[in-house]
Amino acid sequence: MADLETLSEHACFGGLQGFYRHASETIGLAMKVGVFLPPQAIAGARVPALVWLAGLTCTEETFAIKAGAQRAAAELGLMLVTPDTSPRDTGVAGADASWDFGNGAGFYLDATQSPWAGRWRMESYVTRELPALLAAHFPWRTDRLGLFGHSMGGHGALTLALRHPGAYRSVSAFAPVAAPMQCPWGVKAFTNYLGDDRAAWAAHDATELVKSGARAPALLVDQGLADKFLAEQLHVDRFEAACRAAGQSLTLRRHPGYDHGYFFIASFVEDHLRFHADALNAA
Amino acid sequence: MADLETLSEHACFGGLQGFYRHASETIGLAMKVGVFLPPQAIAGARVPALVWLAGLTCTEETFAIKAGAQRAAAELGLMLVTPDTSPRDTGVAGADASWDFGNGAGFYLDATQSPWAGRWRMESYVTRELPALLAAHFPWRTDRLGLFGHSMGGHGALTLALRHPGAYRSVSAFAPVAAPMQCPWGVKAFTNYLGDDRAAWAAHDATELVKSGARAPALLVDQGLADKFLAEQLHVDRFEAACRAAGQSLTLRRHPGYDHGYFFIASFVEDHLRFHADALNAA
Repeated sequence: MADLETLSEHACFGGLQGFYRHASETIGLAMKVGVFLPPQAIAGARVPALVWLAGLTCTEETFAIKAGAQRAAAELGLMLVTPDTSPRDTGVAGADASWDFGNGAGFYLDATQSPWAGRWRMESYVTRELPALLAAHFPWRTDRLGLFGHSMGGHGALTLALRHPGAYRSVSAFAPVAAPMQCPWGVKAFTNYLGDDRAAWAAHDATELVKSGARAPALLVDQGLADKFLAEQLHVDRFEAACRAAGQSLTLRRHPGYDHGYFFIASFVEDHLRFHADALNAA
Repeated sequence: MADLETLSEHACFGGLQGFYRHASETIGLAMKVGVFLPPQAIAGARVPALVWLAGLTCTEETFAIKAGAQRAAAELGLMLVTPDTSPRDTGVAGADASWDFGNGAGFYLDATQSPWAGRWRMESYVTRELPALLAAHFPWRTDRLGLFGHSMGGHGALTLALRHPGAYRSVSAFAPVAAPMQCPWGVKAFTNYLGDDRAAWAAHDATELVKSGARAPALLVDQGLADKFLAEQLHVDRFEAACRAAGQSLTLRRHPGYDHGYFFIASFVEDHLRFHADALNAA
């Protein structure tokens, strides 16, 4: 396991919010990650880790700065882990051409198509290298891992949990891209990263995964009803229908008036942390 | 009172976080301001307002995005008001030349020197036009106004309260520039905005104001001891000594390990809101 370079560390709610960089073997480039250690970890305990997957255009800093989650994480004794949303500085032509694809838009899968394959490997990075990094460098209680995320990162949380049964004790999402084969963001990403084979797409679509028998722990999903992306991009209704038909446990909460941004996330993030803590701190 | 243009509004903790723009008569240009209305205000009540003065380089968005204060404000029924930190788009040459002066660095005073006089009038803006704006456009309980701020905005909170007795029921600060005549930020700002007359400087220096008999409500100040600006720029020790000698009530809390940033502010902002609510919600 490569060294971890400290970019900055900040005392926060009796714990420590840090930002780090490491040479990723999976991606072949430097990757940044944010880690909040709760006071219990500072005092010497090993604690559960809860990984946040952020949405389009976000970085390892976004959730740490905007969500206000450290307060509840400090109370509950949870480590918060915020990876970046894609490789950076890849030199790949076109990676910066649009806000919803390429840089800041890894979609939490391993690309198979040129020029993205080899670098855009966020599924392997999040599911394999990131836990190894936590085990090597942080006081993580290694059998306790939760996963949640927002928008593209909600897609990531749902699909990675469905594709890696047993890896995550607890899973939740805010406004997830829940049926990506049926929305412009997903079609653009899947076409470019995975090619034209729609069977390959279905293996990274939460709704299709549930329909084909994949299962995740009991899910909590929050959705704002004033979210401008709800109708065209997110399709949580279709995911809800698939879960109901398949017997996948899902608590889907609809919130009138709330939009797609971090003021929505901040309003309900404590509920998610308590939901995860119930599973992650259980005996 | 001019119209208020809504830039964006976001449901947040059962309330509403908005960002607005208005034609400022005081400054002669458009100014932006953030306002969080707690659920009590949404439900029809008039509520106390707590104004936050931000630090160097910040805008009306910074505190609203980074401090996580809406949760406690929603519980306590407080309106949070976040003005910008200077005029913008003034056309004044040199206003963008440095990060600690000019744009984003109004220092909460009315400049008397060319080319800053006329536009850089943040004291009049905050103390006169902003309350009028709140009274005209928001459900503000007009006899209830509190003031707090950070760094340059901590200087603003202390000096405006000391210069305008009776205007604010409650006052607090995080890591304030507490003796600006004795620090590089303050000397640079006062020289350019106020000229060479040090008597004019003293009228905008919290430590000098307390020494010369000005009084504010009982003050709460939080200071991180890992703050890289503490020794050279902030001088809270000197302010503490002046308050002790003068009989100005001050609770100064020193926090080992905490730095100058918003992770520090977020960690203690609930304490400040409860401190203000005790005064602002009192019978």
